Amino acid sequence: MTLSRADCVALDDADPLKRFRDEFVLPDGTIYLVGNSLGAPPRTAAAATADVVREWERRLVGGWNSGWFDLPLTVGDRLAPLIGVGPGQVAVGESTSITVVKAVSAALSLRPERRVVVSDPTNFPTDRYMVEGLVKALGGYQVRDIGDLGDALSDDVACVLLSEVDYRTGDRYDTAEVTARVQAAGALMIWDLCHSVGAFPVDMSAADFAIGCTYKYLNGGPGSPAFVYVHPRHQAGAEQLLTGWYSHAAPFAFEPGYRPAEGIQRFTVSTPHVLSYAPLNAALDMWEQVDMTQVRAKSVALTSLFIDLVEELCAPHGLTLVSSRDPERRGSQVSFSHPDGYPIVRALTDRGVHGDFRAPDILRFGFAPLYIGFADVHDAAVTLAEVLEKEHWRDERYRRRLAVT
Amino acid sequence: MTLSRADCVALDDADPLKRFRDEFVLPDGTIYLVGNSLGAPPRTAAAATADVVREWERRLVGGWNSGWFDLPLTVGDRLAPLIGVGPGQVAVGESTSITVVKAVSAALSLRPERRVVVSDPTNFPTDRYMVEGLVKALGGYQVRDIGDLGDALSDDVACVLLSEVDYRTGDRYDTAEVTARVQAAGALMIWDLCHSVGAFPVDMSAADFAIGCTYKYLNGGPGSPAFVYVHPRHQAGAEQLLTGWYSHAAPFAFEPGYRPAEGIQRFTVSTPHVLSYAPLNAALDMWEQVDMTQVRAKSVALTSLFIDLVEELCAPHGLTLVSSRDPERRGSQVSFSHPDGYPIVRALTDRGVHGDFRAPDILRFGFAPLYIGFADVHDAAVTLAEVLEKEHWRDERYRRRLAVT
Repeated sequence: MTLSRADCVALDDADPLKRFRDEFVLPDGTIYLVGNSLGAPPRTAAAATADVVREWERRLVGGWNSGWFDLPLTVGDRLAPLIGVGPGQVAVGESTSITVVKAVSAALSLRPERRVVVSDPTNFPTDRYMVEGLVKALGGYQVRDIGDLGDALSDDVACVLLSEVDYRTGDRYDTAEVTARVQAAGALMIWDLCHSVGAFPVDMSAADFAIGCTYKYLNGGPGSPAFVYVHPRHQAGAEQLLTGWYSHAAPFAFEPGYRPAEGIQRFTVSTPHVLSYAPLNAALDMWEQVDMTQVRAKSVALTSLFIDLVEELCAPHGLTLVSSRDPERRGSQVSFSHPDGYPIVRALTDRGVHGDFRAPDILRFGFAPLYIGFADVHDAAVTLAEVLEKEHWRDERYRRRLAVT
Repeated sequence: MTLSRADCVALDDADPLKRFRDEFVLPDGTIYLVGNSLGAPPRTAAAATADVVREWERRLVGGWNSGWFDLPLTVGDRLAPLIGVGPGQVAVGESTSITVVKAVSAALSLRPERRVVVSDPTNFPTDRYMVEGLVKALGGYQVRDIGDLGDALSDDVACVLLSEVDYRTGDRYDTAEVTARVQAAGALMIWDLCHSVGAFPVDMSAADFAIGCTYKYLNGGPGSPAFVYVHPRHQAGAEQLLTGWYSHAAPFAFEPGYRPAEGIQRFTVSTPHVLSYAPLNAALDMWEQVDMTQVRAKSVALTSLFIDLVEELCAPHGLTLVSSRDPERRGSQVSFSHPDGYPIVRALTDRGVHGDFRAPDILRFGFAPLYIGFADVHDAAVTLAEVLEKEHWRDERYRRRLAVT
């Protein structure tokens, strides 16, 4: 027997993270289960952003000396604990796609005799696309699908690029085990943490590289900058392709030739998009107060409850659980499949329960433990059951409005 | 005889661009001659930025359907007239450094038999650094300094990358003539417009590619996104290296393999840094009302007046004009050299006249015609003369404060 709504309200009252709910702006009547796509805005995002504009107005170009210039490394150091690494190991900037090029080109430079990049067909497509473009330009490289990892790890593999959490299924790799196997084969491990960072405790201290975005569970805002982690053992030897002036040993000497900086600065590129760091910095003020063990415990409870409630309430309606039933193998996301996934998600959103859809038939629900509670999970499952029972989404006029073919 | 201050005030009164001065926020008592580094904030930047945060708060992930997703192309179309090209030819996003990789890798893909990239030792360093990193990774390519263009243009040259306006001297190439010579040699011409766009009318319609930033004369704010222009004749054939999901033919199909989009979308990369577009969009509302012929006429008058006044008032003090005396060969910037350039610039700034310094001995002054007037030029030259006459900057305590060795 699953929990009643009263049980859920009691759990919310006892939740050690409950005070963080007020740190976010969410419209009334909204249960926002899309924080795995774009996180909810921190309450302080607006003021933090306005402060940067005011600094530009007041200090003009002098703003660069007030902290803007150093944003890639200072924000990197703030983010580092969330992925289990230390200061001087993370650079923040550009987009996830660009950080793929940084990490993969750096890894290839460290394994010049090896000519294979292993990826996963279920990886977020842009990771694969960026690798495709890179290896096509470089020539002489091959991208191999992971299949069975043991078979994939031949001695020509330079690096392996995988997403810790699958963006569609929400399934999670055992990063420690996979990293160890990849490294035992002489290859380098690059993790994509887009759906991990801020969702649960992450430990990249054994990995070679990691990348990820900051606008999902970290609440950095639309298009907030991405990050790259480089293990200290690789920082002096790796050569990344995007050798912009920020990565130069003496950026303001304006030397005609390139000399790479020491340390993590070598993995920056150029002028940071300053305004896009503002909400992220505001969010990190909050994240510094968060106990990630509590986040993980609540996340497991929320996702397990959602699976239980949906399976109980929606049993006859053709939903199939896509995510792993084992919470250890799951991120903070639950996915179901249904042939009418798209109109169902839209009908849910019309009733205030925001989920999203990924082709061909996946309904995704992300659970950000700082602003989603147990009663929210209960209400979301009940609303999903109502939508399915009333089959509102089968109505022809509704489907025409959504342009469902 | 140069103009008196009263003459300058009269010129300001008659200035057809004078109404734009009120469109900018500048601290009282500031003459801001660093708009060639970071442009002054448009009056509407703060509200435009706050609107984006509010949209995130109100629409959450739905903001992507309210115009965010299309920013790279819609803002590209708004920017296109400022570089003399049409819609569907400009993509906005990433940094200038990243756009160098887009343009150069695309050019190399169009000239696979040619293995030389010609650049200029005086080009902004990041352009050279990015090309260095790219050709080192690709292997088999060579970067050649331009020297005499005629000698440089052998039949192994794939592309030429030059800045229209030199960031230190302010000197300007004749883009039509250089483009024609490069193309006659079978190579492709890529212009860096960082110090051109918004400074005077630009015409890239004959060029193959162009790139540039938007935070100098265009006033897009610290780290606002860069742009890449691709001539329509190359859009279907060129393959750029940074093949992110935005450049895919069907970004939301999440196909496992990469298929390039048609048209300028092929030159986008990934999720735009939405907040960093906000002041640029606000600035473009203003730029749409600006007559660039008037901007150029005023720019020539301002820079010529500054040269005349400085040479008249500061003659005995060892300043040497670095910029071209011919306004046709000059951008909207005037540079002088002086062995004590750095403390002189700092002493000027302390008196409200903001210029900047570039190693080893260059004093740079940028003249943004929308917010700099003739009386400003007069006052700046007089202040420079005062600083030089009083030799305040020679004071030991002052130099220690600046850490001038």
